[in-house]
Amino acid sequence: MQHHSVSMYERVKAHVLGKPLASGGLEEQKLTWYWGLPIMASDAVSSVAYAIEEILLVLVPAIGLVATNFLPWVSAPIILLLVVLAFSYLQTIKHYPSGGGAYTVSQDNFGKNVSLFAAGSLVVDYMLTVAVSISSASAAIASAFPELFNYRIVVALGAIALITLLNLRGSKESSRIFGIPTYGFIVLMIALITTGIFRLATGSITPLQYAHVQQANLLQPIMGFAFVVLLFRAFSSGCSALTGIEAVSNSVPSFKKPATRNARIVLVALAAIILFIFSGSVTLATWIKVVPIEKITVIAQMGRAVFGAHNPLFYLLQVFTALILVLAANTAYTDLPNLLALLGRDSFMPHQFTNRGAKLTLSNGIIFLWVAASILVIAFAADVNRLIPLYSVGVFISFTLSQAGMVRKWVRDKERHWQTKMLINAFGAVLTGVTFVIVFLMKFSHGAWILAVAIPLLVLLMEVIHRHYTHVKGSMQITRREFLRRYRRCDTDNHFLCLVLVNGLTRPVLKLLNFANQISGNVIALHVATDEEYAERLQSAWHDYGLDRGIALQVLPCPYRNIVGTIEDYLDVAVDQLQPGGSIAVVMSRVVVEHLYDNLLHNQTTLAISMALRGYRDVATVQVPYSYVRAIENAGADKYPVSATTGTDGLDEYSRHEEQAAQLAREAAQE
Amino acid sequence: MQHHSVSMYERVKAHVLGKPLASGGLEEQKLTWYWGLPIMASDAVSSVAYAIEEILLVLVPAIGLVATNFLPWVSAPIILLLVVLAFSYLQTIKHYPSGGGAYTVSQDNFGKNVSLFAAGSLVVDYMLTVAVSISSASAAIASAFPELFNYRIVVALGAIALITLLNLRGSKESSRIFGIPTYGFIVLMIALITTGIFRLATGSITPLQYAHVQQANLLQPIMGFAFVVLLFRAFSSGCSALTGIEAVSNSVPSFKKPATRNARIVLVALAAIILFIFSGSVTLATWIKVVPIEKITVIAQMGRAVFGAHNPLFYLLQVFTALILVLAANTAYTDLPNLLALLGRDSFMPHQFTNRGAKLTLSNGIIFLWVAASILVIAFAADVNRLIPLYSVGVFISFTLSQAGMVRKWVRDKERHWQTKMLINAFGAVLTGVTFVIVFLMKFSHGAWILAVAIPLLVLLMEVIHRHYTHVKGSMQITRREFLRRYRRCDTDNHFLCLVLVNGLTRPVLKLLNFANQISGNVIALHVATDEEYAERLQSAWHDYGLDRGIALQVLPCPYRNIVGTIEDYLDVAVDQLQPGGSIAVVMSRVVVEHLYDNLLHNQTTLAISMALRGYRDVATVQVPYSYVRAIENAGADKYPVSATTGTDGLDEYSRHEEQAAQLAREAAQE
Repeated sequence: MQHHSVSMYERVKAHVLGKPLASGGLEEQKLTWYWGLPIMASDAVSSVAYAIEEILLVLVPAIGLVATNFLPWVSAPIILLLVVLAFSYLQTIKHYPSGGGAYTVSQDNFGKNVSLFAAGSLVVDYMLTVAVSISSASAAIASAFPELFNYRIVVALGAIALITLLNLRGSKESSRIFGIPTYGFIVLMIALITTGIFRLATGSITPLQYAHVQQANLLQPIMGFAFVVLLFRAFSSGCSALTGIEAVSNSVPSFKKPATRNARIVLVALAAIILFIFSGSVTLATWIKVVPIEKITVIAQMGRAVFGAHNPLFYLLQVFTALILVLAANTAYTDLPNLLALLGRDSFMPHQFTNRGAKLTLSNGIIFLWVAASILVIAFAADVNRLIPLYSVGVFISFTLSQAGMVRKWVRDKERHWQTKMLINAFGAVLTGVTFVIVFLMKFSHGAWILAVAIPLLVLLMEVIHRHYTHVKGSMQITRREFLRRYRRCDTDNHFLCLVLVNGLTRPVLKLLNFANQISGNVIALHVATDEEYAERLQSAWHDYGLDRGIALQVLPCPYRNIVGTIEDYLDVAVDQLQPGGSIAVVMSRVVVEHLYDNLLHNQTTLAISMALRGYRDVATVQVPYSYVRAIENAGADKYPVSATTGTDGLDEYSRHEEQAAQLAREAAQE
Repeated sequence: MQHHSVSMYERVKAHVLGKPLASGGLEEQKLTWYWGLPIMASDAVSSVAYAIEEILLVLVPAIGLVATNFLPWVSAPIILLLVVLAFSYLQTIKHYPSGGGAYTVSQDNFGKNVSLFAAGSLVVDYMLTVAVSISSASAAIASAFPELFNYRIVVALGAIALITLLNLRGSKESSRIFGIPTYGFIVLMIALITTGIFRLATGSITPLQYAHVQQANLLQPIMGFAFVVLLFRAFSSGCSALTGIEAVSNSVPSFKKPATRNARIVLVALAAIILFIFSGSVTLATWIKVVPIEKITVIAQMGRAVFGAHNPLFYLLQVFTALILVLAANTAYTDLPNLLALLGRDSFMPHQFTNRGAKLTLSNGIIFLWVAASILVIAFAADVNRLIPLYSVGVFISFTLSQAGMVRKWVRDKERHWQTKMLINAFGAVLTGVTFVIVFLMKFSHGAWILAVAIPLLVLLMEVIHRHYTHVKGSMQITRREFLRRYRRCDTDNHFLCLVLVNGLTRPVLKLLNFANQISGNVIALHVATDEEYAERLQSAWHDYGLDRGIALQVLPCPYRNIVGTIEDYLDVAVDQLQPGGSIAVVMSRVVVEHLYDNLLHNQTTLAISMALRGYRDVATVQVPYSYVRAIENAGADKYPVSATTGTDGLDEYSRHEEQAAQLAREAAQE
């Protein structure tokens, strides 16, 4: 009877999201190399599905059917880049076992500004990965089933929604769901290439004929400089084949132990697979003289020619192409939420990106990606050709920054064989840097200029968020003396259980404790411990302040940041132990909304907890306001700790005091 | 300093939504007949933009270019229907000055079940009005600017978002914004028709020639029954021209006084305008032999032929066509929120549809329509031709029910000249009823079957919602004796101001009062009075129960149901009067979420208030749980008032008691 029973809601949620996971489940969700390969490979392998088409879309309108002759010229440097990148990232994986994305590497080696730039381009990149892959998947499906051509935007939006759901369910399940299609695509592409080359060699099929494509341009060939520019433009489009190669190094912590070794196995396998499929497809496309036409993709044309128009293998190839592209989008669903969580932890993005949902997934990041990718798909009408320019540029920014960061690391650390390692990364950095410049210039007027606006704006936004958090955090600081001077114990006859959620010894917490003491004589403080070491410091400070004489502090372990779930677990027990007719009040702090952005940067956890507690029959919720503006006003300019960092909440002051004490103790001991 | 200052947020909101209105502003927002005409006329007048096209889309594929010859055959019965409907609705307006929509009329004359059916079809209808009008507007724009053809879904979604915003700003402003385009469209259509007929008559233009449209079918003409069915199908499509004629009678209360007279002026003017424009367009289309082709609408073709392809008048016609269609969508934005508010008041839809936002608009209904119409536009790819079958059917359901209801009313009331009046409505009812059957059968396989599923489901949903609200309301009832037995006064030293939001003398309010008494000795009860008469009864019951000895009851007048704003106004004053360092707690009830739907049906006002209070630096919010499931369990089967109605909250029991007392007093007086 005393249970909270949100039965139907819980049932629906369980059905859609799967059973909730116990907090300890994260290691079990990690990937073996053979389940990890399809997830990591998908982005890079699937790019083949559009890269060749993108090269031809540049060449054919300019030089006609002869374009296929130049495919190898354009593809050779791309293959070279692939090999160099593979070697470079093998080194990154080894030296950044906790995930060496461009953000981490550049933060480590270049400091804040460059790393924010890397982060900005990565955020844009991951959004584009989803938009491009899903739009391409939608085109692959429409190539097999032409009646869906007019619904490609709707198909794309539906696919994004589906991937979002799968990811809210947790990554291990999705790796199983997607593993087979990736391997299936790889096998089908190998079959396509070998069968195609065999049939062309034996003469059982002939190169394709196009009625509508003009051949006239051959009479006025583009010559000299214009032709070189054309090849560079084609190369820039083709570079989209390389997107996704960095996924492995970003995701080292997603692998089962030994994570580094598993990641390196995957990277080598991945590079080999791309090498074969990309060069094989280029050879086949060159020989079979394929040309991009509307409504049917280049890969679909080759499949139809090689397997036959009504052969099941053709349909299978289209379906598996779509599926692997969906899985490519899925890569971003692993990586972007992780990146946003890192940025949230460092206070460059809203803190709620660090919270985990019921399935231990970074739900806010996943939902953010869903919305952003859907907007891109609608805005660009699910047209791969219009999205590609933005995509290629963004990818090469992070390639370059990541490689350059590694060079700096070798120069600084000077570990064994650092010269060789540095040379590998330096070669990669120069090559990707030059490619970035080429791609950016070639694609500037085709949409790359959007990035020149969007990325700096994102960097600015992150700076503003960081400054705001620093500002608010500073205002919360309070000295031990001030805290104890203002702390109030009241005598009251009420003995309903009053739970206070505390995360430090700050001004807002002081207000909470005073409020709770006022309304009940039976107060317990709860600390949801996402950081064990910090929780220990809080506990000793709690004792040191003498607060434990009136209010016991209970620490609830919460290693994976599913804060709401941890509080629910505690309350389920507390409610069970209530006397009949008894009730509990949960007292939380709420930041007073002074600006529009306060709504996005604060109170999200408070809101989530309040929502979750709506299902409890005996739990009243109390939100006590905290105004950082007033705190700063009251403190006065001289007292306000301007230098406040984003360190551990509220304990900074206490820590300084503690360190001084420890220092004094050490000095005393030495004397 | 004590002010709440959500400055930036308020500023942005004011910018987007306009200045907030004082509660008294509703009468000033009402419409004169000359500003009301464009709003009411738009839906009906704009239908011409697609009705002729829809007729030809049925005829041309079957019988080729000769189709235009049959346009008058199909249009004549539509014009007859128009005249009959105009006379019928003139009577409705006169006898339902508070708005005679199909829901009101059938509730009044047929009771609950029929009226829910009417309500269901109206809800679907209004959603379709927006989807059809905006899709058609998008097509009109693409006819003038072909480069937008591929973006028509995006254009449509953008337009819907824009109308939503304008409506959140309040209806008077939108009437001004839209008035000129409607009159502009009417003038341009008259110009098109007269110029076109004049130029055809003088031979300065000739009928249109189509290279691609086949003429072969003339050799195998469709004969006999198949041809009659074809004409009926064309008629069914053309009936979309009549949609919107009922708008005036729905919206009588939106007019300035004398509202009935103004509404009747508008209806007559409207019918005359449609009569001229529809029959004129049909004549022109027949003579100029227009045929529907892709990417350019029939009206646009006529405009191009009559005015010339690059004549500014042609572009102006397209822009004004788009604008009037946008205004047609706007009709639904006035009517659907009103209908949802009626349904919410009667507990058939969530209660939050009755709340007014900062601009006194029914914001929740507006936002609901935004989402629903956007989904329809995406699902039907902004294709008018695919939406029309659903639209025509729904409209004729409400026509028929509304006319039949009037017949019943005349028979029942038997007022002066009731026989003539009945005959008019009976003729209308039979005609629209037969048309409904024809349209439904003709369009069943083209999408009308969706309505045969959707409307019954909606009716079922409304029944379920109603039953749930009745159930919960029943659980809240508590007798005076029980209330007073459980009521607790505590002694406490706390004197912070504790405001309790009360809406009756119910179980949840009892819990609130007990909680408030426990935590503070300075409690004030607030009642936000959306119903003055009810507030007076609550006040006298409050006194009668003796509650005013401990807790003063303050009644806050709130005639337009902008509950959040009323509470904010009160708090602004209360906060100003606070001692430095003082604080206020606002105590609210929250329904315990037992099922998924509880989230939609309850706590929305509590949530809205909590959100609004996030900007107050000195206001803590307290939510006390109320579990209707437990209340019912505790009461036991015998005590639970099964017959509880949806009357005035919690005062039912008190009222019965009061009535008995009054009865006794009267009896005593007589003796």
